[in-house]
Amino acid sequence: MSKPRAVVLVSGGMDSCVTAAIANLQYELSFLHVNYGQRTQNRELKSFIALADHYGVVQRLVADMSHLRTMGGSSLTDKRMEVAKADPQKLFHSDTKNIPTSYVPFRNANILSVAVSWAEVIGAQAVFIGAVEEDSSGYPDCRKEFYDAFNAMTDLGTKPETKITILTPVIHLQKYEIVKRGKELNAPFELTWSCYQQEDLSCGMCESCALRLHAFQLAGIEDPIPYATKPSYI
Amino acid sequence: MSKPRAVVLVSGGMDSCVTAAIANLQYELSFLHVNYGQRTQNRELKSFIALADHYGVVQRLVADMSHLRTMGGSSLTDKRMEVAKADPQKLFHSDTKNIPTSYVPFRNANILSVAVSWAEVIGAQAVFIGAVEEDSSGYPDCRKEFYDAFNAMTDLGTKPETKITILTPVIHLQKYEIVKRGKELNAPFELTWSCYQQEDLSCGMCESCALRLHAFQLAGIEDPIPYATKPSYI
Repeated sequence: MSKPRAVVLVSGGMDSCVTAAIANLQYELSFLHVNYGQRTQNRELKSFIALADHYGVVQRLVADMSHLRTMGGSSLTDKRMEVAKADPQKLFHSDTKNIPTSYVPFRNANILSVAVSWAEVIGAQAVFIGAVEEDSSGYPDCRKEFYDAFNAMTDLGTKPETKITILTPVIHLQKYEIVKRGKELNAPFELTWSCYQQEDLSCGMCESCALRLHAFQLAGIEDPIPYATKPSYI
Repeated sequence: MSKPRAVVLVSGGMDSCVTAAIANLQYELSFLHVNYGQRTQNRELKSFIALADHYGVVQRLVADMSHLRTMGGSSLTDKRMEVAKADPQKLFHSDTKNIPTSYVPFRNANILSVAVSWAEVIGAQAVFIGAVEEDSSGYPDCRKEFYDAFNAMTDLGTKPETKITILTPVIHLQKYEIVKRGKELNAPFELTWSCYQQEDLSCGMCESCALRLHAFQLAGIEDPIPYATKPSYI
């Protein structure tokens, strides 16, 4: 019997790479990537293509949602706002996490809506997204309850015969556990991109770089991508 | 005290026009329009601009979601599929409505997600959408339960301090009641566009034209826009 089909949201970062590796165990893969005017858009797209090639994915869709940049409100898309340097005290040790300036309002709902539309057209039964609750800097749309509510809404907003489930296999993992899981599944970390700031060489200093470097360090695994610099606490 | 702000989804059709007229009673208006590669995209945009001018709306956003066309699956965006001629038996008298070929998979979730993102950025407290449950040809994402589920998801996917409510003031109205309500509020029907098929002169024969003509007829009000032809049953 042929495998069921799944749409995997692949940003090009390490979480979506490991999510794709997990989805690959049970599904035929279709990869979706979204450009929303983020600073490192071209570099992320390059990683998306490399990951799709790696997994032999034929069905690929790149959606352009540049209106998410036009409306502003995030340092990830608004060049007038500065990308915050990682503050290790806030990033790794705080209980009450603040929503960072890189938060793109309601981004994941926008991305998932595209994924569900596409899944309904191509007959996919699942949509995978590599959201991470604990390590995700407090974005409200990375929490499990959000995905549960999205699933309920999807069930009501698609055709009666359509059954599409949003799956978040790494949501309850710590970021270092994602690195370990990826390693077990031979996920190609060398093809991924996480830096929010630069496109040529990862800066090592933005929140995304800091979280990634910290995760590889805790996992005891060497991050295969090069960095311009590394924070003193790594 | 200044009025609270609302984002109104304005396609350019009669339902969104009346929805804007209703929102205008209590809110400062921001208008959002979405191009998703529908056949009559340019004509609908023209109506959007005319309606925004009519209501003196300064904050306007036009979002381009052409990936909804790229993925196909709807006669509204896929030029290889034919736009169905209205079948009055099915359109006005059937209890078990079939989902028509013009259904764009999960379209309203995509559109609402953009609206909520924008509402969060500009500090709007409500998002108005002119969805109509009874007369909407059986699209699953036009039903009240869908909007209730979307509201629950929005609450979880936005910042804790953000309170945005999706409002659907015409959802339980019959289409002829929407015409009457619009007339009471002096809604500028002459600026609207409903035809799915043509951009120069409304065809009068597609499902959207047929529903509109039937609604004006039942309301006993003359539709101010011209038609190429009118079905024999009008």
